Amino acid sequence: MKTDQDYMQLALELAASARGNTNPNPLVGAVIVKDGVIVGTGLHRKAGEPHAEVHAVNMAGEHTKDATIYVTLEPCSHYGKTPPCAKLLKESGFKRVVVATEDPNPEVAGRGIRLLRDAGIEVEVGVLQEEAQKLNERFIHNMLTERPFVVAKFAMTLDGKIATYNGHSQWITGEEARGDVHELRHEVDGILVGVQTVLNDNPKLTTRLKDDRQGRNPIRVVLDSTLKTPVDAHIADTTEARTIIVTSLDSDEEKAQQLERNGVEIIRVEKEKTGLHIKDMLKALFKKGITHLLVEGGGNVNASFLRGGFIDQYIVYIAPKVLGGKNSITPFTGTDVETIDVANQLEFGEVTHVGEDLRIIAYPKKAGLHD
Amino acid sequence: MKTDQDYMQLALELAASARGNTNPNPLVGAVIVKDGVIVGTGLHRKAGEPHAEVHAVNMAGEHTKDATIYVTLEPCSHYGKTPPCAKLLKESGFKRVVVATEDPNPEVAGRGIRLLRDAGIEVEVGVLQEEAQKLNERFIHNMLTERPFVVAKFAMTLDGKIATYNGHSQWITGEEARGDVHELRHEVDGILVGVQTVLNDNPKLTTRLKDDRQGRNPIRVVLDSTLKTPVDAHIADTTEARTIIVTSLDSDEEKAQQLERNGVEIIRVEKEKTGLHIKDMLKALFKKGITHLLVEGGGNVNASFLRGGFIDQYIVYIAPKVLGGKNSITPFTGTDVETIDVANQLEFGEVTHVGEDLRIIAYPKKAGLHD
Repeated sequence: MKTDQDYMQLALELAASARGNTNPNPLVGAVIVKDGVIVGTGLHRKAGEPHAEVHAVNMAGEHTKDATIYVTLEPCSHYGKTPPCAKLLKESGFKRVVVATEDPNPEVAGRGIRLLRDAGIEVEVGVLQEEAQKLNERFIHNMLTERPFVVAKFAMTLDGKIATYNGHSQWITGEEARGDVHELRHEVDGILVGVQTVLNDNPKLTTRLKDDRQGRNPIRVVLDSTLKTPVDAHIADTTEARTIIVTSLDSDEEKAQQLERNGVEIIRVEKEKTGLHIKDMLKALFKKGITHLLVEGGGNVNASFLRGGFIDQYIVYIAPKVLGGKNSITPFTGTDVETIDVANQLEFGEVTHVGEDLRIIAYPKKAGLHD
Repeated sequence: MKTDQDYMQLALELAASARGNTNPNPLVGAVIVKDGVIVGTGLHRKAGEPHAEVHAVNMAGEHTKDATIYVTLEPCSHYGKTPPCAKLLKESGFKRVVVATEDPNPEVAGRGIRLLRDAGIEVEVGVLQEEAQKLNERFIHNMLTERPFVVAKFAMTLDGKIATYNGHSQWITGEEARGDVHELRHEVDGILVGVQTVLNDNPKLTTRLKDDRQGRNPIRVVLDSTLKTPVDAHIADTTEARTIIVTSLDSDEEKAQQLERNGVEIIRVEKEKTGLHIKDMLKALFKKGITHLLVEGGGNVNASFLRGGFIDQYIVYIAPKVLGGKNSITPFTGTDVETIDVANQLEFGEVTHVGEDLRIIAYPKKAGLHD
């Protein structure tokens, strides 16, 4: 005898199978059960395509009558690119709808569930809720904050150095870990560096995958309050990938126009005491379509994200090396504090060996949803 | 049908069961097999007590005739606290002796094996050699270098900080990790700090174990080139544990005598450009009976050990915290280098969760045996 959890687990697995393809939509899976038999399955494959419920209902055909549908996210109640799923479920004659978690999208947010209940359908919410929220943690974050999900990624030696005093950092980690970072670039839709990195390393920040797979290039973002990015920098060449330069309200207009002629997009935000206004910038980047931002900053850029509580995930590579050096650069610098108890509290996630290096995932304690 | 490896594996397990009790002697186990049956087993329990071979031979009695003995370390050839085991094996009529690894003790170093072969006994060396060397890595190191096995232990945040700019470090890690450190103190026979730690924290550096077990106190060692250790510091009170202060040849004789009146032992070594001569100090500490030294230094003390290649093992606790701060203190400071490729290369060992923290063990690449 299978339980609600078993069917929801299957729906979650269906949902997860589309990972990386549904942006900016969430991952969703659906399973329809009639008299203890699975009669329909579906998943959301790609933005613009039918929702998971539609596929499952189509497969089940006439078996939806008096059946139960398990769906990993609340069925939508609004007319978007497709008609509302809650309406479809009502018309299909379901007796029971089991939902893992509510849709955080403010256009839904409980309305789908209400529509179903108002139609006399038994609705249960919260089966494998934690797993379902984890599955769409970035989507939920986006919906609630209207900001990208921010990943701070850095590579350091076992004694906590990301570069020598003069900025030399090639290479802290081995080949496998560096390949891993390109997989990460392929997965996100934005990658941010400080202008100092552009001046030091002149990087392209494009994605190079192994095995000749075609890499997806994230939008490149440079934090550059005084527009020091050279017009002939690799990153100012937008033939391969988009580039956004974030600068202050009063930086040189003529330089901005030069960069714009290369196709570079300029975002202007206010300055704070410690640098550009990170929250305004994140809201602007979200409007530009960046839902998942990889920050590959130096110590100062990282610290400016940390200060506002804007880091949602940490991906830290630790190399089996000890560098030393009083002035070597560490992953987070910025303002000094007096005591340890004011440190930002995290929780460790997965710890994995990647080649000779270690990769540690961490999250802010009581994770992510600030504002 | 059991193999040589199977019997040697058992002998290694017997040896390991005495871990922590045999200092300064190595861990050794022995298994005697006659016609496919184990007729004798033994292990070295404690310095001054019989060697593993003696126990096994006693148990086997008359069955040693034409039998095979598996022993994890070359049988000794010299008259120490006990007569030479190689002689005992010869007289016991063994047909075959299987040895995991040679004894690095310069008083043995192949002589035991030669004695047996000269007596016409078949001797095989190298079965599970790597495991056997790992088991006694510290003993082997001691014998080859006449220095303690040096463990650099530090606790840092995920962004590589061991203290704030003003030296505040209580507490980086959680309760479990701090308990773990006391287990480590119980296991070593020396613990070293810089005088700055004495001045900042006035620590006792004694061992406090959980569950009311009696902790063994390591000898406390302070690196103090100008004898700044206060006469009334906790560490200068030698009623609970021994204290050695390592200082330069020319530091104040009168202050030294004051400390000595408290029972503090003073070691004088030459000064180098970057501080006290670490190698001379290590040789002197070894002569004082320290075979296993835990270095709980700050960034400078750690760097002075690193420079000479004197760190044999790293035990690093990483707390799920991000501290930031441009002037926060990192685990290794000292002289700056220009490029990453001159970093000291390590290999990661075990990675374990200890409470909310992570513990990473690492070793110098191509481990340990300098000189």
